[in-house]
Amino acid sequence: MNWKLAARAAKMNPSVLREILKVTERPGIISLAGGLPSPKTFPIQAFADACAEVLHNDGQAALQYAASEGYAPLRQAVADMLPWNVDPAQVLITTGSQQGLDLVAKVLIDPGSKVLVETPTYLGALQAFGPMEPNPVSVASDEDGVIVDDLVAKAKDARFVYLLPNFQNPTGRTMTEERRAAVSAAAAEAGLPIIEDNPYGELWFDEAPPLPLTARNPEGCIYLGSFSKVLAPGLRLGFLVAPKAIYPKLLQAKQAVDLHTPIFTQRMVSAVMKDGFLDRHVPTIRALYKRQRDAMIAALTREMAGLDVKFNAPKGGMFLWARLPEGIDTVKLLPKAVERNVAFVPGAPFYAGLGDPRTLRLSFVTASVEEIDVAIAALAITLREELELLGEHKLAPAPV
Amino acid sequence: MNWKLAARAAKMNPSVLREILKVTERPGIISLAGGLPSPKTFPIQAFADACAEVLHNDGQAALQYAASEGYAPLRQAVADMLPWNVDPAQVLITTGSQQGLDLVAKVLIDPGSKVLVETPTYLGALQAFGPMEPNPVSVASDEDGVIVDDLVAKAKDARFVYLLPNFQNPTGRTMTEERRAAVSAAAAEAGLPIIEDNPYGELWFDEAPPLPLTARNPEGCIYLGSFSKVLAPGLRLGFLVAPKAIYPKLLQAKQAVDLHTPIFTQRMVSAVMKDGFLDRHVPTIRALYKRQRDAMIAALTREMAGLDVKFNAPKGGMFLWARLPEGIDTVKLLPKAVERNVAFVPGAPFYAGLGDPRTLRLSFVTASVEEIDVAIAALAITLREELELLGEHKLAPAPV
Repeated sequence: MNWKLAARAAKMNPSVLREILKVTERPGIISLAGGLPSPKTFPIQAFADACAEVLHNDGQAALQYAASEGYAPLRQAVADMLPWNVDPAQVLITTGSQQGLDLVAKVLIDPGSKVLVETPTYLGALQAFGPMEPNPVSVASDEDGVIVDDLVAKAKDARFVYLLPNFQNPTGRTMTEERRAAVSAAAAEAGLPIIEDNPYGELWFDEAPPLPLTARNPEGCIYLGSFSKVLAPGLRLGFLVAPKAIYPKLLQAKQAVDLHTPIFTQRMVSAVMKDGFLDRHVPTIRALYKRQRDAMIAALTREMAGLDVKFNAPKGGMFLWARLPEGIDTVKLLPKAVERNVAFVPGAPFYAGLGDPRTLRLSFVTASVEEIDVAIAALAITLREELELLGEHKLAPAPV
Repeated sequence: MNWKLAARAAKMNPSVLREILKVTERPGIISLAGGLPSPKTFPIQAFADACAEVLHNDGQAALQYAASEGYAPLRQAVADMLPWNVDPAQVLITTGSQQGLDLVAKVLIDPGSKVLVETPTYLGALQAFGPMEPNPVSVASDEDGVIVDDLVAKAKDARFVYLLPNFQNPTGRTMTEERRAAVSAAAAEAGLPIIEDNPYGELWFDEAPPLPLTARNPEGCIYLGSFSKVLAPGLRLGFLVAPKAIYPKLLQAKQAVDLHTPIFTQRMVSAVMKDGFLDRHVPTIRALYKRQRDAMIAALTREMAGLDVKFNAPKGGMFLWARLPEGIDTVKLLPKAVERNVAFVPGAPFYAGLGDPRTLRLSFVTASVEEIDVAIAALAITLREELELLGEHKLAPAPV
């Protein structure tokens, strides 16, 4: 048969990461790799009650075709929970926030369109944008997010800049208030739309992050949110908030893609969320993840002592970012770590341009404190062996 | 802000149909318009039991991220229920079969690619393909489906032909065994891939339709199926079966779009389907829809007597196709019908090329027998008034 692929499909390649990580599903491996929320946090009983309630009270409507925009009470709940003035008519419920990225790509990207991303950026966004064949351009970034001068320098003719200001995937970094104000002003000045992705914003440990960029200029931003990290990812429920100028196009793209997000799960989540459930539930997730972040930092400090290993201390979210000594390539290190029953994600695939081979992402949310201790110890042994093997002998004297 | 739309988005227009049909959601209107399965057929208790069971037995896994390919037992169940030898590795679970169309478009359509469709064809497919900017070409069709000579004449350089052989949306027609054999042979001869969409195939009334086209040449077809019509549409669960040469590309497109189909609803449906549930449940749907189809045909025969109204008698599915007397434009007739509290879907939007303005689609599944009687009587009055208004006076003598 003459199966002729579209140009965009001919360019698609299996996710490097996915291929690498298949091996990490082996039993016995402690995975610090995947971005899987801790299943301990899933409110199973609340979901069970919500299913029973929805099917008992509104069974027929919960199983019928429904509006492409989403379930009205859920759209209202989203508008109510966001910290700026959102009209529910601007809220589109999506099949996970990943779908929001696909819709944005369809509506805003032509082949060759310049789109700006952080250095590094969320790999799933690069994958979602990819089929529309953009030219993704990395904006120089530091520990506070994109650097404004470089953003301004690259803004011309860019369709948008994609930013993840809170506890970014993969770096765990957060954009400061000062940087947000500067980025927001610079983007508005340049007429550059912002796609703001905020799946992790509720997972703060000591204090809530600064206001979203969208709150500062709602007409200039599309905001993407998710229920995956505060309730459960397996329902695939997210949302976007778009200016009225763009919303109808996103809605038409949504209709064409899957008619609507499953109404049953929308009603389930709406039922779970009533009576302030998230206000009671989310603090328990924050407390758990904070304990695990602390454990990971303690373990890294202890086990990597004397090695030239840099890592950050994220103020929330799920991920920590580390950089190993010169000469190390984390893609090559991974299979050796897996032999010692620990997995991580190499950092290079997260870069739109040339990746830094010394970087890696560590998730502190899926594994328990005990597992984190074991895993980081195993990672340190792997690293020390690799350094010796490389003849680098960069070991400093052991700490006293 | 400088929101520059992608070319594909600039071309998107609000669905004519959707705008027209908004008015039909008014209370008091009997809608023969939407393709909504009868909510009486939704197995609410079975779903309630399945939710409780899944959350009790596998709550954490049912709420966690999952494989992009879909839930393995559900893929196996799909393979088992199809009437040819399907490897579960070829099954991809989709967020409704509409998503299958989006994935096919992404993988097979370049801007300007010729894609062949029936005359008329499923509007949702035209909408799903649209963002990839194909050149859709209508293949001449009769009451048995596409005409083979015209298919062959147009096959050159076409990326695929999209066919809905069973109880087609919008016409309700079914491709005969003879036509299937000829279409399958002609497509294979021309090297023309077939996208076979089969959401309605299980809804047969007196006898099962002939074997799918895909069963005759699995390497030359992508098959799309759905749980919407046999269980419930509000879960948005469908599937596709693709040859091994194409599957990896569809899977990559799926990952980029939404990571995976909600695993909770996949497990729910898998739990509902065990122990042969569909074998007991689907016959009740068939019986209900057959009664309602019979009622609609009887009402049309009675109420349209003496008018030049042609309609078919579908052997299954949800829709009946009618053609009104010369001079009638069903798009213009619709608001007048709505004034008389009945709604239908005009036929013209279902044509890739120039539509036949005299055609309309009537759903016999959502309204009850009593409602169908009232609605068809109201439609006949509307039509008679319109004919008089047109000065056409085509009224034949009233039947004795």
